[in-house]
Amino acid sequence: MFTILPIKGYLDQIDGFNCDGISAGLKPSGDKDLGFIYTSTPCDVQAVFTENKFQAAPLKHFLQYEENFKTNFVLINSKNANAMTGKKGIEDINTIFNSLPFDLINPIMSSTGVIGNPLPIEKIVAGAKSFDLSASSGENLSKAIMTTDAYAKTCMYQVNLEDGSSFKIGAVSKGAGMINPNLATMLCFICTDANVPSKDMKEALIVNSETTFNAISVDGDTSTNDTVMLLANKKSNAYDKEAFIEALRLVMHDMAMLMVADGEGAKKAVAFEVINAISTEEAQIVAKALSNSLLVKTALFGEDPNFGRIASTIGASRITCDEETLVISYNDVIVYNKGELCFDGIQEAKASKVLKNDKYKVICDIGLGDSSFTAYGCDLGYKYVEINADYRT
Amino acid sequence: MFTILPIKGYLDQIDGFNCDGISAGLKPSGDKDLGFIYTSTPCDVQAVFTENKFQAAPLKHFLQYEENFKTNFVLINSKNANAMTGKKGIEDINTIFNSLPFDLINPIMSSTGVIGNPLPIEKIVAGAKSFDLSASSGENLSKAIMTTDAYAKTCMYQVNLEDGSSFKIGAVSKGAGMINPNLATMLCFICTDANVPSKDMKEALIVNSETTFNAISVDGDTSTNDTVMLLANKKSNAYDKEAFIEALRLVMHDMAMLMVADGEGAKKAVAFEVINAISTEEAQIVAKALSNSLLVKTALFGEDPNFGRIASTIGASRITCDEETLVISYNDVIVYNKGELCFDGIQEAKASKVLKNDKYKVICDIGLGDSSFTAYGCDLGYKYVEINADYRT
Repeated sequence: MFTILPIKGYLDQIDGFNCDGISAGLKPSGDKDLGFIYTSTPCDVQAVFTENKFQAAPLKHFLQYEENFKTNFVLINSKNANAMTGKKGIEDINTIFNSLPFDLINPIMSSTGVIGNPLPIEKIVAGAKSFDLSASSGENLSKAIMTTDAYAKTCMYQVNLEDGSSFKIGAVSKGAGMINPNLATMLCFICTDANVPSKDMKEALIVNSETTFNAISVDGDTSTNDTVMLLANKKSNAYDKEAFIEALRLVMHDMAMLMVADGEGAKKAVAFEVINAISTEEAQIVAKALSNSLLVKTALFGEDPNFGRIASTIGASRITCDEETLVISYNDVIVYNKGELCFDGIQEAKASKVLKNDKYKVICDIGLGDSSFTAYGCDLGYKYVEINADYRT
Repeated sequence: MFTILPIKGYLDQIDGFNCDGISAGLKPSGDKDLGFIYTSTPCDVQAVFTENKFQAAPLKHFLQYEENFKTNFVLINSKNANAMTGKKGIEDINTIFNSLPFDLINPIMSSTGVIGNPLPIEKIVAGAKSFDLSASSGENLSKAIMTTDAYAKTCMYQVNLEDGSSFKIGAVSKGAGMINPNLATMLCFICTDANVPSKDMKEALIVNSETTFNAISVDGDTSTNDTVMLLANKKSNAYDKEAFIEALRLVMHDMAMLMVADGEGAKKAVAFEVINAISTEEAQIVAKALSNSLLVKTALFGEDPNFGRIASTIGASRITCDEETLVISYNDVIVYNKGELCFDGIQEAKASKVLKNDKYKVICDIGLGDSSFTAYGCDLGYKYVEINADYRT
């Protein structure tokens, strides 16, 4: 038995973790753009990365370390992704770390921003030199890693175990667009003082990715930099595998939901729940197709219960389906029922009411099996176009 | 040897084809919404349909006829797709044809519009009863089949063969959104007086689909109603297989390009040319991924030469690729060259200039093989959201 309680506070709440964020002049606005996580005791670290074939330089740099290495320092910048920058991208990271006057053990870099420009090394080195590694402002860090995010994303849990011991686990992340299928332009740093064995860390990350980050979509794009990193300094001496996996799942789920709700102008957070498909794989294909369909997303934005677009997307996904077994609902309002026309004025009015909410479910009962999958998506409106038409400027 | 010349005029230019379009009251605006094609001599007819699993009722109705049937009448309505309407959808079509006072041979129906509502049979019957089957206004027909199209789409060619004989081939279509991978919400009716053998008709349609309609994308959705129909009344007695296939390709290419240029608010028609991939299949995957990427589409709208989004989309498509062999250009302006940073102020200014055009190429040289594929897409701006947020109203 264990309990998991949400608590307030940033990463620096966790014993042994320091962090901060500053403005190094990368963002022309003068907003914070460079941050760090530092641990007095070197941490075990595990990460899952983008499936994009063009991994950014910081990912390649990370992967040059031996398996199961320990680190005491993560440097994170926004505004420049250091992706598609060739060998120079990795050299730049080494140059930066070699210029810093700190005692760093296997330092890690993480970047997000525009692809294809060289890192502004001088600004980053000058900024990082000014860091106070004993600082503790998780709030500053959370701001420094933002790009098109409308708000900073963070969460924290305390896990109380049966034997009276406890550990904390929390995260900070960025991500609000290019979020989809297999990770997304998102960075998520999860820190814990749980005494988790290194071998359980990777397993827990992978187990939980499928139903959290890999189930959300803002626009169907997968970036070059996506990273979920788990740092464990073991300071608490408390651990229970089941509790740890569940607490990590909560952290990853919270972060994923905050990202989807911040989907570059999105006003609606929608769960696409596909049930009774013939396999989990097929349920997942449909759920993700729905969360990615432009026609579905614009109809959600227009608060239009145009279930035909949902049906059409299911059919276009080419999974096993039949219009005589399919049932489509918005929350508990059925709008399509196995080919019997049920979409009269009353149902339409009820459905319209559901669509006015900020958060609701689209439930698609395929009616042919017993497998299910839920994907999380959002609407797409003018704001998305505005943000993405001139992101670089 | 043969020559193919574009000529002016609508379908009624072709010997033996009559057509017209009227307002039957389906569109609240009072615009034309019901049209027909009638041939005094029954035609051979072949069609390719959507790959959506939920085929609309008119498609199922067509497929109930025996293979290689002949017809003399196609009835086309806009505003209602007659899709997801169960058995009633097909019964409604039979009811309509049984109510008409014409001598119809295997009549065909074709519908486009909102999914999931029953056909307004009475309005359609009343409208169709008023048809004058000897009318010849291809222009009226081209308007009657429009939904979100900004303009009517039509083309016509005359093919002169070596022996002095000639035939005509022309088309009318609708389609401006939901256009992608394998056909699209698009209807295309191609008529010819070529003396084409029935067996060549289907073959020519399939051969030409891959590089025309199946290569265009507006928003990645595939509808329930997509149809390309070829009607041949053989009146000319002229035929040459090679000439026919090429003329049909021109017709299908013209129609596809008009659809992509009319991509629901699109201002840019962009060819995504992928070259030197290791297989045609991989080239096609990337070309289509680029034409479907929201981040790419919004960057095109913003006239922003943000090649990082193109690179990221190539990487995310998971084809065989390497950042050290990849070259990306806008027309002849190279913006990414095998990892050597070449995107300086001069190249950026040149690239920006290309992006101000209404029409240009994005060329991605994968540098690993010798296969290529070109997909056609468009930008995505505010207008797309406006059109699709409240399409039904």
